[in-house]
Amino acid sequence: MDDTQLTDRVAALEERLRHVEDQLAIHRLINSWGPAVDTGNGEAAAELFTDDAILESDLSYLVGPAAITAMVYGEGHQALVHDGSAHIPAFPIVSIEGDFAKAIGYTRVYRHTPDGYEVWRVSANHWEFRRTPDGWRVTKRTNHVIDGGSEAKELLTGVLAWR
Amino acid sequence: MDDTQLTDRVAALEERLRHVEDQLAIHRLINSWGPAVDTGNGEAAAELFTDDAILESDLSYLVGPAAITAMVYGEGHQALVHDGSAHIPAFPIVSIEGDFAKAIGYTRVYRHTPDGYEVWRVSANHWEFRRTPDGWRVTKRTNHVIDGGSEAKELLTGVLAWR
Amino acid sequence: MDDTQLTDRVAALEERLRHVEDQLAIHRLINSWGPAVDTGNGEAAAELFTDDAILESDLSYLVGPAAITAMVYGEGHQALVHDGSAHIPAFPIVSIEGDFAKAIGYTRVYRHTPDGYEVWRVSANHWEFRRTPDGWRVTKRTNHVIDGGSEAKELLTGVLAWR
Repeated sequence: MDDTQLTDRVAALEERLRHVEDQLAIHRLINSWGPAVDTGNGEAAAELFTDDAILESDLSYLVGPAAITAMVYGEGHQALVHDGSAHIPAFPIVSIEGDFAKAIGYTRVYRHTPDGYEVWRVSANHWEFRRTPDGWRVTKRTNHVIDGGSEAKELLTGVLAWR
Repeated sequence: MDDTQLTDRVAALEERLRHVEDQLAIHRLINSWGPAVDTGNGEAAAELFTDDAILESDLSYLVGPAAITAMVYGEGHQALVHDGSAHIPAFPIVSIEGDFAKAIGYTRVYRHTPDGYEVWRVSANHWEFRRTPDGWRVTKRTNHVIDGGSEAKELLTGVLAWR
Repeated sequence: MDDTQLTDRVAALEERLRHVEDQLAIHRLINSWGPAVDTGNGEAAAELFTDDAILESDLSYLVGPAAITAMVYGEGHQALVHDGSAHIPAFPIVSIEGDFAKAIGYTRVYRHTPDGYEVWRVSANHWEFRRTPDGWRVTKRTNHVIDGGSEAKELLTGVLAWR
C-alpha cells in the first residue's frame, strides 16, 4: 500500500470518529439538563444554550439564557425542586451535519410526593444544536407533553424520515 | 516505524471503530421503535425488522412485517396511541459478531390516563439483529413483562454470561 | 505528508477511540447491575465491583463483594425480586482520566405490585471506577434517593463542574 492510500484511510477514520464523538457530546449535553434543573441551578441550565436559544413547551416560550435562568428560579420550578424531581431523557436519535445537529426523543419528569414517586410529565422533544467554540450548545428545544394530542405525535413523526 | 506496522494500526482502528459504530447503530434501531408505534405508524414499525422477523411477547407471536404492521393498526394498539403512549427502552447491553448481533435490556411503556401517567408495562427483552444492505435490522425480539415470573428473569440472566 | 505526521495522526486516533470505548464500557458496566440484581444473582452483582469497593446508600453501607452478595441474597432484596423489579439507570455523565473514571447520573427502581408498576425509588448516584486487568470495575457507588433532601442534590451538583 502506498502512502496516499493510507493517508486517505486515516482521514476517513478521523471523520468517522469525529461523528461518533459528536454524538456522545450531544447525548452529554442533553443529559446535563437534569442535574442543572433538579438542583435548581438556573445559570447551569442556561449555559447549555446559545444566546439566541429558544425553549418552547406547553408551559412556556422562552428566548435566551436569561429567560431560562428566570424560569428555573421561578416559583413553579422551585416548588418542584423542593419536592424532589428527576428530569430524565431517554436515549434520543441524533442527526449531525457539520456544525449543526438535531435530535428527537422522549423526556420524563419524576416528582417525589408524600405517597412516593409520580411520573409527572412524559414528553416528546425536538432539539437543535450548534457547534460553538465552547462545544455543542442547544439552539432550540421544542417539548410537547404526551397526552394523545397531535403536537407530540408530530414531533415524533419527524424522526421517521431520518432513517 | 515502517509502513507495515502503521498499516496494521490503521486496520485495527478501522475494525474497532466499526464495532463502536455498530453499537450506536443498534441503539438507534432499538430507539426507533418508540416513535413508530407511539405515532401509530405500522409501516415505520415494520421497517425496523427483516422479512423473516419474529416479534414474541406475552401478548402475541408475530411473524414478518405484515403481522407487525397489523398489530400496530389493531384496535388495542390504536387505543393506546389515542390515550398517548411512550415506548422507552433503557440502554441495553449489545453484543456484536460480524454481521450478527444481539442485545438484552429493559423497555417500559408509559400510558397517559385522565389521572396522569401510568407505568403500563415494564419488560425484559432479548433482541437479535442482522446487518442488511440497508443497515441493521431486528430478526427477533422476545419480550416478557416483569411481574416476578420466571420468563423475564430467564431473559435477563442470559446477559450475565456475556461479560 | 511524511511518515512522522501520519504516525502522529494514528496515535491521536488511537487515544481518542480508546476514550470512546472506555465510555461505552463504563455504560455497559453500569447497565449490568440491573440484570444481576433483578434476577437476584448476588455473585453477578458483586463481580461488577473491585475487592475494596464501597456501596453506599440511604439503605446501607457495604464494603467488598461479599457484603454486596449478602445484600442481594438478603430478605429485603429477595422480596423485591419475588415481586418483580427493574433497576434502570439513566444515561449518566462519565469522566475518564487514564485508568480511573467517575460518573454521575440517575437510577430508578420499578416494582411490580398487584395494582401495576410502582416507581419505587428514584436516586442520584456518584460512581467511581478503576481499570483492572479484567476491564473496568466499580470502586465506589454512592446513591441517595431523590426526596427533596440535600444529599441527592449535592451528588448531582458535582457534575455541573465537569463541563
